[in-house]
Amino acid sequence: MAELIDGKATSLRIQDEIAAEVEKIKSNGGKVPHLAAVLVGEDGASLTYVNAKVKACERIGYGSTLVHLPQDTSEETLLAKVEELNNDDDIDGFIVQVPLPPQIDEQKVVDAIMPEKDVDGFHPSNMGKMVLGLSGMVPATPKGILMLMEKNGIETEGKHCVVMGRSQTVGTPVSVLLSRKKTPGNCTVTQVHSRTKDIADYTRRADLLVVALGVPEFVTGDMVKKGAVVIDVGIHRVEAPERKSGFKLKGDVKFDEVEPIASRITPVPGGVGPMTIAALLHNTLEAARNK
Amino acid sequence: MAELIDGKATSLRIQDEIAAEVEKIKSNGGKVPHLAAVLVGEDGASLTYVNAKVKACERIGYGSTLVHLPQDTSEETLLAKVEELNNDDDIDGFIVQVPLPPQIDEQKVVDAIMPEKDVDGFHPSNMGKMVLGLSGMVPATPKGILMLMEKNGIETEGKHCVVMGRSQTVGTPVSVLLSRKKTPGNCTVTQVHSRTKDIADYTRRADLLVVALGVPEFVTGDMVKKGAVVIDVGIHRVEAPERKSGFKLKGDVKFDEVEPIASRITPVPGGVGPMTIAALLHNTLEAARNK
Repeated sequence: MAELIDGKATSLRIQDEIAAEVEKIKSNGGKVPHLAAVLVGEDGASLTYVNAKVKACERIGYGSTLVHLPQDTSEETLLAKVEELNNDDDIDGFIVQVPLPPQIDEQKVVDAIMPEKDVDGFHPSNMGKMVLGLSGMVPATPKGILMLMEKNGIETEGKHCVVMGRSQTVGTPVSVLLSRKKTPGNCTVTQVHSRTKDIADYTRRADLLVVALGVPEFVTGDMVKKGAVVIDVGIHRVEAPERKSGFKLKGDVKFDEVEPIASRITPVPGGVGPMTIAALLHNTLEAARNK
Repeated sequence: MAELIDGKATSLRIQDEIAAEVEKIKSNGGKVPHLAAVLVGEDGASLTYVNAKVKACERIGYGSTLVHLPQDTSEETLLAKVEELNNDDDIDGFIVQVPLPPQIDEQKVVDAIMPEKDVDGFHPSNMGKMVLGLSGMVPATPKGILMLMEKNGIETEGKHCVVMGRSQTVGTPVSVLLSRKKTPGNCTVTQVHSRTKDIADYTRRADLLVVALGVPEFVTGDMVKKGAVVIDVGIHRVEAPERKSGFKLKGDVKFDEVEPIASRITPVPGGVGPMTIAALLHNTLEAARNK
C-alpha cells in the first residue's frame, strides 16, 4: 500500500507559512500583498476556481480584488483592465482566469500582463526565464508540483523521472524544472506523449512518474515500477450514477491498480490540485517582495 | 561505417536558398535583410566567429554591419549601442558576440535587445515563446541542429532521442524542440547530464543521440546503440604535437570508436558548427519578413 501524498494538507501548511510572513510584514508596518483576479463571464468551474483563490487570500491575510466582467466584454476593454492593473501600485500580482470568451485572444491578454505581476507564470518572458534559470514567476501548477515534492521529502536528485504529457502549462515546464541543477531537480527526465511508441516501456523505468496527459485513468498497474512515486496531475469528472452528485473525480492514473505498486501516490482530488493555489500565493508574495 | 552528416554542405545549401530569396526580394524592389554584429574587445575566437558571420552575409547578399567596440567599453555605452540598433529601421537583426568583458553584465545586454531583432534567440521572451509554441526567434544553435536533421532526412517522429547536456543555449532548448508536436519533433526525449546515474544505460537506448556535454570525447563506442544517429555539438581544441598547428579539433564524441557503430554521424569540425550561421541568417530573414 502506497503512502498518500496529501496535497491539501501541504497546501494549507504552505499557506500557514505565508500567513506568518504576512503577520511579520504587518508588524513591521509594511503593505500586505494584494492579489487581483479577473473573471470574464459566468463559467461555473472558473467561478469556483476564482472564488477559491479569493478565499485563500482572505485566509492568509492578503488583500484581494475580484474583477468580474460580463461575458460580452470586448478584447479592448479587457486589455484596458489589464493595463490598469499593471499600473495599479497597490496590486502586486493578478491573474486573468481562462478560458476567455471567443471574442478575446487569450495570448494577447497574457502578453499584456506585466511579467512582474504575472503570478500565473504564463507570460513568455517568465517561461523563458525559467528555461534560462533566471529569477522570474514560475508557472503556478509546475511550481506547486515541485513544492509538493519538496515539502513531502520526495527525493529527485539522480532519479529517473518520466513526465507524461507535453502541455505548455504542465508537462513541458515540469520537465525543464526537474532537469535543472537545483533542488528539487537534478533528475534525469524522459518526456513521453501521444506520439511515443510503447509508452509503458518508458514509464516502467521511472522512479518518479509525473502524469499530465489529460486522459482519465490512462496509467494502469502494469505501467508502473514497484516502489515508484506517482504524481497525478489529471482531474476529470467521470459519470457515477451510484453517487448523489452523478459524478466522481478521477485522475490520469487508475488509482486502485497503481496504489498497491507505488511507494507514494497523490490522490485525486486532494493531490496536485490544491498546490496550484499555494504556488500562486507564493508567487504573489515574491512579486510583492520584488517591488 | 556510418554515413557522414555534412553540416558544412548543408549550411551552404541553406545559404544558397536564402541567397535566392534575397534575389527575389531585390527584383521585387524590396529592402535586403541587414544583420549587424557587435563585438567588444579583441578576443581571437570571437573575432573569427564575427568575421565568419559578416562574410556569410556578404556571400548571400545581406547587408551587414560590424560594430567593433574597445575592450574597456562601459556597460552604459554598450546598452546605448543596443538601443541605437533596436531603433535603427535599416537593421533587421543583430547579435552581441559573447563573452563580454567583465565590466559588462551579459544578461542585462541580452534583455535590452528587442526580441524581434534578437536573431541569436537568447532573449527570455524568445525562449518562452519556444516553450509556448509561439512564433519567435528560435535559438540559433538548436535551430541549426533541427535544420541539419530536416535537410538530411533524419527522421525524428516516434524516435527515442537522448540529449546529453542541459545548457540553456543547447541541451535544454533542443530537448524542448524535439519533444514538440512538429516536424522535426515528436521525439520521446530523455535529457541526461552530469548528475545522471549510469549515463550509458540511457544513451544505449537512443535512436538519436544529441551530444552537448562540453567534455572532449566523452561518448565512447560502448555507449551507443548499433545504428543510432549521432549529432555531436561539442568542439574542443586538443593538443596534437604531431600537427603543424599543434592542435586538433575534437567533439564530445570519440569519433573513431562511435563511427563504426552509428548509422549516421556528424564530423567535428564540419558538423553542427556551420549550421549555427545558417540558422542565424535564417532568423534574420524571418526578422526582416516580420517587419
